[in-house]
Parts: sequence; C-alpha cells; structure tokens
Amino acid sequence: MEKPFTRNEYMKRMERVKQRMMEKGLDALITMNPANMNYLSGYDGHSFYVPQAVMVFLSEDEPVWAGRAMDASGARFTTWLKDENIRGYDDDYVQSDVKHPVQFFADVMREKRVDQKRIGVEMNQDFFLHRSYVELIRALPQASLVDVSYMINRIRMIKSEQEITYMKQAAQITDLAITAAVNKIAAGVRESDVAADVYHALVRGTGEFCGDYPAIPPLMPSEDKTSTPHLSWSDRIYQNNEIVHLELSGCRLRYHAPLARTVFTGKPPQRYMDMVKTVIEGLHAMLDVIRAGMTCEEVEQTWREVIRKAGIEKESRVGYPVGLGYPPDWGEQTVSMRPGDITVLEPNMTFHVLPALWMEPYSFIISETVRVTEQGCETFSSLPRELFVR
Amino acid sequence: MEKPFTRNEYMKRMERVKQRMMEKGLDALITMNPANMNYLSGYDGHSFYVPQAVMVFLSEDEPVWAGRAMDASGARFTTWLKDENIRGYDDDYVQSDVKHPVQFFADVMREKRVDQKRIGVEMNQDFFLHRSYVELIRALPQASLVDVSYMINRIRMIKSEQEITYMKQAAQITDLAITAAVNKIAAGVRESDVAADVYHALVRGTGEFCGDYPAIPPLMPSEDKTSTPHLSWSDRIYQNNEIVHLELSGCRLRYHAPLARTVFTGKPPQRYMDMVKTVIEGLHAMLDVIRAGMTCEEVEQTWREVIRKAGIEKESRVGYPVGLGYPPDWGEQTVSMRPGDITVLEPNMTFHVLPALWMEPYSFIISETVRVTEQGCETFSSLPRELFVR
Repeated sequence: MEKPFTRNEYMKRMERVKQRMMEKGLDALITMNPANMNYLSGYDGHSFYVPQAVMVFLSEDEPVWAGRAMDASGARFTTWLKDENIRGYDDDYVQSDVKHPVQFFADVMREKRVDQKRIGVEMNQDFFLHRSYVELIRALPQASLVDVSYMINRIRMIKSEQEITYMKQAAQITDLAITAAVNKIAAGVRESDVAADVYHALVRGTGEFCGDYPAIPPLMPSEDKTSTPHLSWSDRIYQNNEIVHLELSGCRLRYHAPLARTVFTGKPPQRYMDMVKTVIEGLHAMLDVIRAGMTCEEVEQTWREVIRKAGIEKESRVGYPVGLGYPPDWGEQTVSMRPGDITVLEPNMTFHVLPALWMEPYSFIISETVRVTEQGCETFSSLPRELFVR
Repeated sequence: MEKPFTRNEYMKRMERVKQRMMEKGLDALITMNPANMNYLSGYDGHSFYVPQAVMVFLSEDEPVWAGRAMDASGARFTTWLKDENIRGYDDDYVQSDVKHPVQFFADVMREKRVDQKRIGVEMNQDFFLHRSYVELIRALPQASLVDVSYMINRIRMIKSEQEITYMKQAAQITDLAITAAVNKIAAGVRESDVAADVYHALVRGTGEFCGDYPAIPPLMPSEDKTSTPHLSWSDRIYQNNEIVHLELSGCRLRYHAPLARTVFTGKPPQRYMDMVKTVIEGLHAMLDVIRAGMTCEEVEQTWREVIRKAGIEKESRVGYPVGLGYPPDWGEQTVSMRPGDITVLEPNMTFHVLPALWMEPYSFIISETVRVTEQGCETFSSLPRELFVR
C-alpha cells in the first residue's frame, strides 16, 4: 500500500520528538493517542476502542507499534515500520478481567531495557485511561513515568509541505460538502436528507482523491438549537425563516480543513444582516493580521475590537490549531486564540479561525482554515464569506 | 425536542444503577463515558473531546449533567433533566494549563455533600483519562474512589422494548447500507464511491426515520487487506476476483445493529465456496442454540465444533453485546462469546454474532445482530445469509 509520507518525513518527525525527549531527559515515550500514533508510525485503523500504542526509544530509529494481533496486520499495510517493530497481542487480552494490553506494552519496554528509565506518558490525552496508568506502574515498578501530554501535538502544529497538500485536498472536499448542504437546504426539506448529501460529498471527494471519515461528524444545528454547537441532524423539516449552522470538515488521509457557514431560509431581517456584517468584518480583521510573530491573544483582540465597535462584548476562543485527527477531535488541543494565550504564531501552523455570535434570537458562525506564513496567512477554501440565503 | 425515551424509562435506569450502587456501598457515581452519559441523562452531542460528566447521587432522583457551557444548551435540548441539574463550565476550563473541568465536577460533589463519601469511577472506560483521576483525588482528598468500570454497561445489556425498537430501526438502515454497497461493488469501481453511497444510505435512513453517525465508520477492507478488520476505504479500484468485507451499522438515536457480509467480484472458486458454506453453517449453528440460560462460551463452542468438522481450529471471540454507542465503539465492552466466558444469556440481551475465517488466500465474514429470548433468539436483518457475488 502506498504510504502518505516518505520514510524520510517520518524520520524527521522522529528526530523532532527525540530532540524534545532529550531535553526532558526521557529514554522512551508511549502514546496511545490515535493521531499521535499515526503521526509517528503512519498507522491508520479504526481500532482505538482497544488499547494500542506507539513507543519511541531514544536508542532506536523506528518506533514500535503494539496492538491487537488482528490490527497488527493493518499496521503492516499502513505504517512505515519493519515487521519486527509491529507487535500484536493475542485476543485474550481484549476486554479481559485477567490480562491487560498495557502488560504487553510493558514487555516491549523491558525488551528495550527502559524498564528502569524515564518514560514519557500522555496522562491527559485520549485514550490514556486511568487503568492503563495503573497497569503501567504495576508492570514497570522501577520506571519513572513523566507526563508529556501534548508534547507531540505541539510538534504537529508546524506542518510539512506534504501535510499542507493533504489539508488543501481536505479543504476542496469541505467546499464540496458545504456546497451540497447549501444547495439542498430549503424550507420543506428534512435535515437528515441534507446530512446524507453532505456525507456523500465528504466521502466521494473528487474524481482524483476521496475523503475519509471526519473526526467530528457534520454539525448542523438549526433554529433554536443553533444556541449550541455540537448537535448533528434529525428527522426535522426545515421551516421558513430559520438559521442553519454548518460546521464540518473534509478529511484526507486523516488531515482536516474545517469550515463553518450559516444558511438562512427565507428573507433575513435587516437586524440580522447587520450582525452578519459585523462577524464577517471580524473574521476579515483576523485574517488581515494573522502572520508569523503574532500571538494567539493578539489575533483574538482584533476580533474583540471589531465587535466592541458594534456594541458587543464577548470573550471566548475564536480559533484553534487543526490538522491530523481521529474521533472525537480534529483540533490539536494545544493552544487557543483567546485572551491570555501568548503562543507566538509560526510559519506553517494551521488554524481553524472560527468567530461566532449568539444574540437572541439570532446567531451566525463563519470560519476559515488558514496556514500561517511569514507575511500573513493563506486560506484554503474557495467559498465566499457570506450568509447563504435560500 | 422530543425525547427518545419517557421520563419513566430514565427513572427505571436510575433505579437499576442505584441498586448496584447500594450493593457496592456507593453514595455517588461519576461517568465520563458518552454512552453511559446518554443512557442515564439522554445527553446526545459530539462534545466528548472535552471532559464532561454525568453524576448520580443516591439521594437525588435525577442525575447531574456537567460539561462546557456551550454544550449545556445542548443538554437542555436532549436530556430529561431539570435545568438545575444541568451545569455548564466557562470556556477558560477548556484545554487550559491552569483549570481543569474535573475541578468543576468536584464542586458539584461538594455541593451534594458526597466529598467525603464513596464515589464510583469508571477507571477503565473511555474517556476517563489518568489526568482526570489525578484532578479528582486532588479536588476531593477525603473521598474514596471505587472502580465501577462496566457496571453501567452491564445494566445496559438488557434492553427495554423501546431500545429494541430503535435497534430494529437501526437494522433496517443497516440493510439499506449493505444493499447499497452490494449493488455498487464491481470490478472497475472505486472503493470510495461505494463508501459514499453507503454513508448516504446510513444517514438518509428511510422516509420515516433517519440514521445518525455510527460509532464505527463502515469497515470495508478488500483484497489482501481483508486480513485485517479495521480499515475503511481508499481511492483503489476494485479488480476482478476480489473479496470485499463489509462490516457496518446503521445508527438510530445512538442505537446500533451491525452486520457483516462479504462480496466477491467475479466467479468464486469452489474451494472458497466450501469455506463460505462452513462459516454460514457455523453462524446458523450458533443462531440455533442461542437462548436465555446458555453461556457465552457454549455459543462459541457450537461454532468451534462446526469448523472442527471441516478440519479447522480457531479460538477467538465470535460475538459481543451491542447497542447504544459513540465513537470509537458500538460494542458494550462487557462480555465476549469466547472460551472461558461463562456469562449466562438473559432475555433482551442483544449481541453482534460475528464468525469469520481467514484461510490464506481466502477470508469470509458474515454476522447477525440478535436479541436473546426465552425460547431462542430473534434476528434483526432481513438480508440473505450468503456470499454476494458481483
């Protein structure tokens, strides 16, 4: 199977991770987070409902993938690893009261002679459950476990050219899916029939490349439910004069480029159009200032000043880094564009910039996925930045 | 918004949970698992990439839902709870180095005066991360935390009539999606174009009711990749004389009814058809014996005897309980139909019975989702149990 990245690119990722490990005095690292596992090994399978891991050893070129035996075969197809670095545990480890897969991972640690060393663990990341921690210290009583939550995620923030290429492909798919929704939404149409067309577009992709299942399903609350962002769809029929929020992402080889747009069925009132204008102005203000060297909170401040001029006060995050992801999140969970976050933007960071306003009874969301450059930022979508009226 | 279940049904679930809590001497319980949260509160939102919880108190009729403020609004739409039992935390708790949502949950525990009591915690379940455990003992140093992993899942194993209704609706959707795949798969067709039609069918559902996003995406490895179960689709074009595995599920109000079928493009060789016959015979043998009072391992043994007669030895699980689920799993993660599991089947338990054989270079999978009854079992799908030849 063709791999999405060259061996060289995976080696570079390993180097960056090992560099950080050395700075932290770590001899080994274990990640059970599907996105981080993919980043280091290439592994891509929907098997993370059982414990599985990628382990990095300072002394080894390649990481070790460990998981269920039936998925080790999937690792042989999807990773860049030598067969000796793919380890499958027997099925009697699965959902057992006696055995636990972490014991199997600990065996690899012992084999690599790091069982009395400092081992990095992502204590605050999906899917590192408390029980896994307990099993790990029980199996490796001489090891020192060090929390390295989000360390790999921070490395992931800076994208390679190949990663940017996949995000742009994802963005093309996003545009197709948003367009499918906008074309279908109208008073009298069932929400789920729109969602079906959206999913078809997300998976079909283009004639050249397809889409994968996104880490977050299409979010499309309508009417009074637009007061909350994380609802999907129902059997409800759209009525006239309704607001429909669309937040969704194409996914290309696990890379995302989310986008939000809002649809209005009927003729939007002037008061609503004024609010729409303010939010779009706020988005443009942020896109105008984003560039390497800026801080996250400075970007948010730009937005806040625009809405303050319109007499609105609202402090919340308006952007987060995005890229490689598995359910339940396409966000990288590292930094936020919000007051207090002084992270400095660097070239090839990618953000989902998502301003939104809720002013009873109206709400409006609109976003762009952007790549930070030295001079400014590059947007990936080719859709107009406007309210879609249907 | 109409709720999927009556208040009375939610109250019954609470009673069963409290009964188990009393047996274990617990005063309170906290679950951060989306399926268990839904089971107790009705909450349905794709927001579990941030910590959120449902807490049960022996002294209270209703549980408390706690999550991000923007999702509290979603909880108002989807749960059966009074407004006072829906608690939203501010956005500065999200992905912060300073604040952690578990501190907010602990505040509720203190308010309910269980901060020095015995509190049940699901230490081995998604999404109870190790960091959440650390924050919980830090915030509630006087509490005793007791592991109750899978306790609610075991209660969920026995379905109500209304739950069965939703599973049957899910099964109708599953049949539509499998049929869409079988109709589309042929040499010369791109895998992703089949996947797009499958997703369209999964979400559109019937004219009467729609489908939700399934907890596991359609799994459809083909050709040599049929050696591993958890791959999805790619840009590859199907060739002649290929085996395609389909394992997927419709989802109705978060209830699943998965099904596996196998497609062959071209004319299957006799040796393969012999193997297919054995597996189908094994599935039928299991469906014939499943009834209340049997043990899980007895069901598996029936399968093993059929394949032994065909000269094949293979010990692995051939079934697991299924129902309510969120990514990454539609399985209930409690018991398995495999040697050593002496769980006794009870009426209204529901299982995905999934025998499979891999014999180089051939493989074949076929399954049914079933409801255990006093006299036997009821299957939900109306698709024929056969190899689909295209």
